[in-house]
Amino acid sequence: MTACLPKGFAAASVAAGIKASGAPDLALVATSGDAGAVSAAAVFTQNLAAAAPVQVSRRNLASSGRRAGAVVINSGCANAATGRAGLATADRTARIVAAGLGLERDQVLVCSTGVIGAELPFDPIARGVPALLASLESSEDALRAAARAIMTTDTREKLAAADLPNGAHVGAIAKGAAMVAPNMATMLAVIMTDADVPPEELQSSLAAAVAVSFNRLSIDGCTSTNDTVIALASGAGSVSRPLEPGELTAAFTAVCKDLAHQMASDAEGGTKTVRVVISGAIDDESARIAARKVADANLVKCSWYGADPNWGRVVSEIGTAGIEFDPDRVEVSYGPFTVCRAGIAAAHDEAALAVYLKGPEIEVRCEIGLGKGTGEILSADLTHGYIDENMGLS
Amino acid sequence: MTACLPKGFAAASVAAGIKASGAPDLALVATSGDAGAVSAAAVFTQNLAAAAPVQVSRRNLASSGRRAGAVVINSGCANAATGRAGLATADRTARIVAAGLGLERDQVLVCSTGVIGAELPFDPIARGVPALLASLESSEDALRAAARAIMTTDTREKLAAADLPNGAHVGAIAKGAAMVAPNMATMLAVIMTDADVPPEELQSSLAAAVAVSFNRLSIDGCTSTNDTVIALASGAGSVSRPLEPGELTAAFTAVCKDLAHQMASDAEGGTKTVRVVISGAIDDESARIAARKVADANLVKCSWYGADPNWGRVVSEIGTAGIEFDPDRVEVSYGPFTVCRAGIAAAHDEAALAVYLKGPEIEVRCEIGLGKGTGEILSADLTHGYIDENMGLS
Repeated sequence: MTACLPKGFAAASVAAGIKASGAPDLALVATSGDAGAVSAAAVFTQNLAAAAPVQVSRRNLASSGRRAGAVVINSGCANAATGRAGLATADRTARIVAAGLGLERDQVLVCSTGVIGAELPFDPIARGVPALLASLESSEDALRAAARAIMTTDTREKLAAADLPNGAHVGAIAKGAAMVAPNMATMLAVIMTDADVPPEELQSSLAAAVAVSFNRLSIDGCTSTNDTVIALASGAGSVSRPLEPGELTAAFTAVCKDLAHQMASDAEGGTKTVRVVISGAIDDESARIAARKVADANLVKCSWYGADPNWGRVVSEIGTAGIEFDPDRVEVSYGPFTVCRAGIAAAHDEAALAVYLKGPEIEVRCEIGLGKGTGEILSADLTHGYIDENMGLS
Repeated sequence: MTACLPKGFAAASVAAGIKASGAPDLALVATSGDAGAVSAAAVFTQNLAAAAPVQVSRRNLASSGRRAGAVVINSGCANAATGRAGLATADRTARIVAAGLGLERDQVLVCSTGVIGAELPFDPIARGVPALLASLESSEDALRAAARAIMTTDTREKLAAADLPNGAHVGAIAKGAAMVAPNMATMLAVIMTDADVPPEELQSSLAAAVAVSFNRLSIDGCTSTNDTVIALASGAGSVSRPLEPGELTAAFTAVCKDLAHQMASDAEGGTKTVRVVISGAIDDESARIAARKVADANLVKCSWYGADPNWGRVVSEIGTAGIEFDPDRVEVSYGPFTVCRAGIAAAHDEAALAVYLKGPEIEVRCEIGLGKGTGEILSADLTHGYIDENMGLS
């Protein structure tokens, strides 16, 4: 396993008592040593009901000139739909961490994830932060523990890493298993690099990476109030040369796609990861719209769960996606098995297809036959487990 | 129970062998006596992958000058994504019925419902139509049997009726339990009136009624390839005076709303019917968009199933609906219980709310506080039963 903590960073986590279960629920990623604030960038949810931590982080990032030294994250409560009290809690959390680390208050970013509409109590945070600060450590174990502390219904912690061509590194942690249709969704991620990158370049690389990774992921079509992806660049790595254009974006993209795939494969109740690929649309935007329409359709998602090659539902969804479409030209394939050609059923090896559809990763490809537009969405099936997770009082 | 078969109409149904179960699967609604073709109107799916029967009915309605004498409906196969062979089968079905009833071939409309992508065999239809024609009868029992013959996953037949102020009557049959987000979904309905109405007026009344009933219904957000609502006006009723403007629309609206409610309460796997009402949006269109976003959100639908007052998910969906929205103004209520005021949690009688949410019919109301726009969507919860219905090979 590649190291996921680049040079110049440290991590910590504690059980602060926000989660009723007593599991770890407060995590910190910070610059190490005396580095203080470094280049920072972020992409936030476009949900108009953005949570208090999103509002506070957005404000801090702007007022600090895109420099930050720490990201503090709680799980167990989204601090969303909590009004002024919620904003005050997010702000006080940033302040108490800033004070402990010798940063300005606007150099700390804040994230929350959990139930919407519940008040986030400040007391457990106030009690937890000293222990959090005391345990900050530049180790893979500390980062992995932090990745675990930000989990909600996730069953596995999510980390990723990539090497930059100049010798610097990128590493990241994330969470997300439902209410995931980032645009941005609740997914949270913190991406670190020890490359030396000015804030503007960091932001553009992050935005480009998010556009083709998290924003091409949809577990349930629900865009969260708390989605946040933050990037920090410590500049502490040993490098052979400056980065060339595109190199950081490529590494960020690799890391974000890796994390997006981890989220899809850890989808609430999910039994399989599904990539929907549309080609032959009149343009890429049309292809992406159609891919999302198919991936978000409950009837299609149920058929994946049942390993049912119900391609008719796929064609029906494309037909209502609002894009140019001629049903007499469409070809639909599951992996290597083409089940529909020129809009009607095509003979195929049904036994082999049945085996393919029962696998943990499947691909649904639709060639529309009108142009050169392509698009894809990474998704998951809709299962009894998803309903179990989400029907309960929580 | 009001009579659902107006004067001048007859109905029939048989088990033609399209359904493997051997259940009735071919139904006919026709004018009675020597009435022949009468004023006809229809609203079809906007799915670009419209099924063969939709294409044939659309064509027939146009070429006949909006006159029809019969509607023949099969369940067990949607005859969608079936190419030229499917068109030929739909056309031959219309012809054989027309020949038997002494109508022109374009005076018969055709509907199908069932699995998409499977070929609809013509043989069972050819064998079934003579028995169908022989059993045509102007009786409530015959109409009810026809309503049963068009069911797929519906658990109950759906009929409705309304009286017109001039002494004429409206009656209707319908089916629909999933793939229901009409714009027009697979829902099918045939509405009859014995009022004397020219085709243009029939079409405008039907369109107006559909707009506020079926098009405000969403069971799973999936718009079918086969949705069809047909209206026929026999003019055979005894009337005291001509209809005044709006009277037919009002009666059609009452019947369509009744049928839409029956569909929502018979939603696949559904345990409750839910009305989502948005008010205070900047305009009606915004309110409708938000209502649909909430009603189609899986996380919201799961919370209904679990009787969980998770209003935060509702606010989150409105926040991503793409409409103007200020989360600090929103008020959310379940029936008489207001659970969120000015964007944050509001105290309420939790025990009484729990009882309310376990009922078979609930209302979710969101006052946005920005304007006077209102909109609503009738929907259902997302349950284990829905997944059972739709994961299987069928």
